[in-house]
Amino acid sequence: MSVFNAPTIAEILEAKRVLSRLLQPTPLVYSDWLSEEYGCHVYLKLETAQPIGSFKIRGASFRISKLTDAEKKMGVIAASAGNHSQGVAWAARKFGTKALIVMPETAPLTKMQNTQALGAEIHIEGQNYDEAYAAAQRIATTSGMIYVHAFHEPEIIAGQATVATEILDQLPDVDAVITSIGGGGLAAGVGLVLKEFKPGCQLIACQAVATPAMVRSIEAKSLVTPDTQTTFADGIQVKRANPEMLEILKNVVTHTCEVDDEATAMGVLKLLEKAKILAEGSGGIVIGALEQFRSSLEGKKVVLIVSGGNIDVNLVSRIIDRGLTKSGRRLRIDVLISDRPGSLARLTQRLAELRVNILQTIHDRDEPNVRIDQTEVHLTLETRGPEHTEQVVRALSQEFDGARVIR
Amino acid sequence: MSVFNAPTIAEILEAKRVLSRLLQPTPLVYSDWLSEEYGCHVYLKLETAQPIGSFKIRGASFRISKLTDAEKKMGVIAASAGNHSQGVAWAARKFGTKALIVMPETAPLTKMQNTQALGAEIHIEGQNYDEAYAAAQRIATTSGMIYVHAFHEPEIIAGQATVATEILDQLPDVDAVITSIGGGGLAAGVGLVLKEFKPGCQLIACQAVATPAMVRSIEAKSLVTPDTQTTFADGIQVKRANPEMLEILKNVVTHTCEVDDEATAMGVLKLLEKAKILAEGSGGIVIGALEQFRSSLEGKKVVLIVSGGNIDVNLVSRIIDRGLTKSGRRLRIDVLISDRPGSLARLTQRLAELRVNILQTIHDRDEPNVRIDQTEVHLTLETRGPEHTEQVVRALSQEFDGARVIR
Repeated sequence: MSVFNAPTIAEILEAKRVLSRLLQPTPLVYSDWLSEEYGCHVYLKLETAQPIGSFKIRGASFRISKLTDAEKKMGVIAASAGNHSQGVAWAARKFGTKALIVMPETAPLTKMQNTQALGAEIHIEGQNYDEAYAAAQRIATTSGMIYVHAFHEPEIIAGQATVATEILDQLPDVDAVITSIGGGGLAAGVGLVLKEFKPGCQLIACQAVATPAMVRSIEAKSLVTPDTQTTFADGIQVKRANPEMLEILKNVVTHTCEVDDEATAMGVLKLLEKAKILAEGSGGIVIGALEQFRSSLEGKKVVLIVSGGNIDVNLVSRIIDRGLTKSGRRLRIDVLISDRPGSLARLTQRLAELRVNILQTIHDRDEPNVRIDQTEVHLTLETRGPEHTEQVVRALSQEFDGARVIR
Repeated sequence: MSVFNAPTIAEILEAKRVLSRLLQPTPLVYSDWLSEEYGCHVYLKLETAQPIGSFKIRGASFRISKLTDAEKKMGVIAASAGNHSQGVAWAARKFGTKALIVMPETAPLTKMQNTQALGAEIHIEGQNYDEAYAAAQRIATTSGMIYVHAFHEPEIIAGQATVATEILDQLPDVDAVITSIGGGGLAAGVGLVLKEFKPGCQLIACQAVATPAMVRSIEAKSLVTPDTQTTFADGIQVKRANPEMLEILKNVVTHTCEVDDEATAMGVLKLLEKAKILAEGSGGIVIGALEQFRSSLEGKKVVLIVSGGNIDVNLVSRIIDRGLTKSGRRLRIDVLISDRPGSLARLTQRLAELRVNILQTIHDRDEPNVRIDQTEVHLTLETRGPEHTEQVVRALSQEFDGARVIR
């Protein structure tokens, strides 16, 4: 691994030149809906549009572009169960070197498949990221392959910094940038650029409540190691803040916040419904941050970096279901009907009159806490919104026994 | 309604000037994944990024920009249950005139709400679009409000044509453009531009198999009226081809095709997973068309117009579920277990060993066709793909009674 220094502005501008030959600038799209909802001018920087669906392609590409021919002959190695693996695989193929990615046994299958599809070799070792990382270090030492770190290298940070050079080209009078933060490569790169070229611009970094090590360390301006839980924003699920990254970040991040998974899931749903963009947790979390800074950002030009969109579609399906329930457009309710012909027909007829769409019914005759002449029906209903939901609950409560909303 | 003529190139260029002051050009994004999969260079023209999530904002805005002050005082009226209503509402607000949208009773609630949120008044009348259209015409006549047609007006076509002027600015050497076709406003506008400025460029227009009136009329070069069914590509669900639109289209569309809903749903899923874009049916259908023209487009630069993203998220959830099943990543299977303690534990332990994720189990003791000492378990499982699915089916079939895959 190279000795660590923050990249210079010259290196960042070199990254910009190199990457402009490889990658289209990603779109910066104004969002009418989000602007109206949050009372400021919201622009979305769509790193989801990168070939690998994430900003990680930038750092990996610049890093690998700088390898000597001798180093390229040895190949590159990285440890990652996430977007970094795809970035390294993509860049290795582009620059004609081989890539070996070490993943823990718990890595999601789609990430393995996507990485292999980009031509990288996968080596599975370890129960978690730390063990996979140790394995990759060992293999790098014995094989002579070049280790490519996910954030802790100046070329990686310089590559990620090009997100900000593009933002300044696209929106020179930006007032604030909101980014998620994990290892800190993206936030550090963006921060270095803003500090140099747009010193008045705020940089708001957000992390999941469940893994807040980096934002808390930035606030404390020294390393803290809070307890961590799991979060579905797995792209920024980093247990410990890296002290050298913190040295950069504490000087360039102007504000921090923590967002819970519920708000992040609502952010993913909002980006999907309002901006037609699929974001992963670490992309959707920025909407939660915007919510928290709403009053101080009023009327300002705010860029949200939607850092990536590599989320399992099974999870998307669950987020949609959860979000619809939370926003009052989906209702789960149990009611009792008499165990006689025609009872279910009466219930469904009533639901038709109320103009609700039935998504699922489970008709459960075995429910033990129910009178022997009654049957419980579990309903999942689609409504027009909170008011309609209330109207349906009221009607069913008055007209049927034992109506019980499931939250 | 104005007397109908195709717009001139001068009018289209005027639309370009007018709209450039109102709307950002939408992104044209190269898709690595789709390019690799289909063996050509695939670019996505993202009309999903419009403020209303659809290209319809272009025609409506140019049309309303041309109203006189006296006409603006009267307000505008349109009949639509879809994207046109949002386009008219958005443009009316922008140009300071009021908008009345007539929708049939069957209009989706989200479309009503989104249109109201843009400041338009909604009038519900009629059982279907034709009846709502008649009502809107009647109201226009009696009130003096200006009727804004969804496609059959030169200003509307000139507005939609700016999709193509942007494509030529963004990718001057485009070889083919694929668009969906319904009323024909978008295809006509795009076709007029290509014919003038890029005559060698193919224009492939696709429609749902269920409502193929326009593509069949273009093929026949005369009006045909095939039977229609419903399709979830509701944005292009037009029963009869308009004869004047056909006059333009038969001269500018070079190829046509019909895509079934299954292929369109897979297209929506692919855009979501590979491009991180939410498309509605009439946006996703272009992937189905690309599939059909794969061999003739090999190596070419192909722009897919992703015309809009206004799809109910409940439907997205269903498309994801269906697509995962179809692509072998989701498995529904019933098995019988003995009705004794420990049986379900044995089954779930086996599933854990097979490394499948259990999405749902329904344990059904009442199933009548089952031996009295057995219980049927309905399983919904997530697998790694077709091979893994086969492996799981094989294992469960050998080790448990009555394994039956549900397709």
